[in-house]
Amino acid sequence: MDEKLKQDLIQIVGEANVTDSLIDRVSFSYDASEHSHRPEGGVWVESAEQVSEIMKLANRERIPIIPRGAGTGLSGMAVPIEGGIILDLNRMNQILKISIEDRLAVVQPGVVYANLEKALAPDGFFFPPDPASGKVSTLGGNVATNAGGLKGAKYGTTRDYVLGLQVVLPDGRIMRTGSKAMKSVSGYDLTRLFVGSEGTLGIVTEITLKINPKPTATSTALATFDNLEDAGNAINQIMHSGIIPSALEILGRETLSAINQNTDLNLPEVDAMLLAETDGYTREETDYQLGKVIDVFRRNNAREVRQAETAKDVEDLWAARKSAYAVLARIESNFVLEDVTVPMTQITALLKGIQGISEKQHIRIATFGHAGDGNLHPQILYNGYDPEQVKQMERASADLFKLAIDLGGTLTGEHGIGLSKAPFMTLEHDPVAMDVMRSLKKMFDPNNILNPGKMGLEV
Amino acid sequence: MDEKLKQDLIQIVGEANVTDSLIDRVSFSYDASEHSHRPEGGVWVESAEQVSEIMKLANRERIPIIPRGAGTGLSGMAVPIEGGIILDLNRMNQILKISIEDRLAVVQPGVVYANLEKALAPDGFFFPPDPASGKVSTLGGNVATNAGGLKGAKYGTTRDYVLGLQVVLPDGRIMRTGSKAMKSVSGYDLTRLFVGSEGTLGIVTEITLKINPKPTATSTALATFDNLEDAGNAINQIMHSGIIPSALEILGRETLSAINQNTDLNLPEVDAMLLAETDGYTREETDYQLGKVIDVFRRNNAREVRQAETAKDVEDLWAARKSAYAVLARIESNFVLEDVTVPMTQITALLKGIQGISEKQHIRIATFGHAGDGNLHPQILYNGYDPEQVKQMERASADLFKLAIDLGGTLTGEHGIGLSKAPFMTLEHDPVAMDVMRSLKKMFDPNNILNPGKMGLEV
Repeated sequence: MDEKLKQDLIQIVGEANVTDSLIDRVSFSYDASEHSHRPEGGVWVESAEQVSEIMKLANRERIPIIPRGAGTGLSGMAVPIEGGIILDLNRMNQILKISIEDRLAVVQPGVVYANLEKALAPDGFFFPPDPASGKVSTLGGNVATNAGGLKGAKYGTTRDYVLGLQVVLPDGRIMRTGSKAMKSVSGYDLTRLFVGSEGTLGIVTEITLKINPKPTATSTALATFDNLEDAGNAINQIMHSGIIPSALEILGRETLSAINQNTDLNLPEVDAMLLAETDGYTREETDYQLGKVIDVFRRNNAREVRQAETAKDVEDLWAARKSAYAVLARIESNFVLEDVTVPMTQITALLKGIQGISEKQHIRIATFGHAGDGNLHPQILYNGYDPEQVKQMERASADLFKLAIDLGGTLTGEHGIGLSKAPFMTLEHDPVAMDVMRSLKKMFDPNNILNPGKMGLEV
Repeated sequence: MDEKLKQDLIQIVGEANVTDSLIDRVSFSYDASEHSHRPEGGVWVESAEQVSEIMKLANRERIPIIPRGAGTGLSGMAVPIEGGIILDLNRMNQILKISIEDRLAVVQPGVVYANLEKALAPDGFFFPPDPASGKVSTLGGNVATNAGGLKGAKYGTTRDYVLGLQVVLPDGRIMRTGSKAMKSVSGYDLTRLFVGSEGTLGIVTEITLKINPKPTATSTALATFDNLEDAGNAINQIMHSGIIPSALEILGRETLSAINQNTDLNLPEVDAMLLAETDGYTREETDYQLGKVIDVFRRNNAREVRQAETAKDVEDLWAARKSAYAVLARIESNFVLEDVTVPMTQITALLKGIQGISEKQHIRIATFGHAGDGNLHPQILYNGYDPEQVKQMERASADLFKLAIDLGGTLTGEHGIGLSKAPFMTLEHDPVAMDVMRSLKKMFDPNNILNPGKMGLEV
């Protein structure tokens, strides 16, 4: 790091909170994607005022600033691809307020999702998005990517729960958006402009979240299918049953087999397994809803339908689903985890298309995901030391993105664009929308110092 | 209307769809607020392409264009305060697609809310926001104001259901935002930048909405309270009961008395009546939830708690609530209906504050509203022919806005800023947020031709 810059940063955050050591620079060069690039250094911040001072300095000196939470992002959005300084928000980790009567929580961006869950649990409340990375990912990161998760179909994503923000703009100005009221239509919706903006428009330094009382009853069932077509049809017919499951997950053959290799769950290795949960406050309610789902499973030739009878059964089923990402990650040295999302009627076509891409590109793709909102996670497995396999992975990814868009879907349901999908933005968005996004970036960040190189916004 | 302009407009939409007759200009000068101003004329459009041509013309000639749906807005946002041309979207009234399996509806902006409800009902689906004006208001207007309604606490507002838009920008370019997938984090959230933007950033010409299966069971109860404090406490303690009612409405003494004068419902004329509904799929579920609400009512000294036993009971109760606006409107020659919204713990203070303002400004204020999300509707009743009463109304409004902001709330929960609350924007938003909103307006509409004079964005 340039010595003058280092001294300036030390002035703002103190010597202990500035680093340009090799080990820190290497740690800060990665997230959970396949991308990496070393920054010049990093700073740990503790207040919006410090962030503001840093942004003023960076804006004056034209130094890229890359905000970072837990680094669990899957599309490279925290990777400092153009160098610069990592701004680490993990020390801003205070839950500032929980008010059950007001139905809200006010938190700093470095609070880990699971810690908020823990703090809300005694009052029977929760923050519904439930991202799979929730044990480690931070709420600031959840906001930056508009994180979704297992409960998306019924409860929506982070966006639906952010009432207001404190944001530091690229020029250092500190702004408040939104309201502590449950609803507001006062002026433009600045709040949601920042949700999902991947740290490219401003740095979130405080978040006001709407929270929900947690339903106290659930019912759970699994169904196995001998072919993808039946499973796909079951998924999209569930909407016709008149209920929304609180979770509806799919696990493909490759995924089931990987789970069996790594656990003693002994899952049937069929083409597809569906896992459904319904929630409510009474057993009558959750069983009534689950009954509707089970009817759909049966009508679509499920080989087996099994309702979980005990808490242990339920736990085992969800443990299996939640282990998918990790057990697949162990099969090959490398993987990319995609999150294409399509309209529900296109799920069968997406499942079959993924199979086709796997065959065409000679690469293993294991699939699981949130079937209830059309969001699949094809996990492409490859050996990163074999240049041919890296090319196969890249071609498979590109095919997958084209397939999702051809089916009327989106590149990303919950992981964001970052670096991984930046080259594909124009597949999904028309030239006017691209132009408007670029104008927005320019309006907020004319010197392009905040997380540059992301989202395909540079021409 | 200038003859050259008239001929240019006729070229675009045909002679039958251009007007500058006095009667049309007078009709177009009002909405449901206290504001009015005559436009130079109006056009009826039938396609995005026509809207695009009109915007190109208007941008070239610097003519204000004011998009208009049903004209039911309560804050003057469709009033052509700087003259110009009304762009009437009522003829773009086609439901383009309903796909239950995809859980979505695609509509033109002129579709009336109730007509979509009717079209969804056979499949047991609904579009939840349920604005009180739903029988006449258009979905384009609902999007422009981010309309809310009786189901807000449990089901959110319009914003939570808009998946994508087609928008014509002020320069005539046509853009698509969002996705037909249930969730997407691809690029900036342009969709929600337009939701609630009151027709100042672009003209919405197509809307893709997420729809919900409608719960098949409800339970309903009312409770009466001899003082506001008890009612307010009951409202904010309901969150602690662990459930969210599908509706929780409040009716104040003035409102109850007005309803009694105009119906044979014979409601008790207490300080406050609360009306609660819970929903689900089974009677066990809805009664369980309602039981929690009734416990809270009893703990807070409800004079009477009555659970509706028959469909007729339920219908009567909701008829009473829904008649509030209309019966109050008949009491005086004029009224303004506000929609201040506060955090739930501040509801008692808001209720008492409204009473105080009524006494201080010597003006009648009747209150009802959506207690479940902190959104009250104080309806200020006055004689518009009496200049002194007009001043009292203006002072009472100003006091009310200050009160809501002092209590940590917002100027508007669901009616929007428009003209009525434009002078008060800086009470709620800090100078940076105001500056960002102004920059956004300038970015999209550098010549300020689209619905100018609204939202307090002009300095």
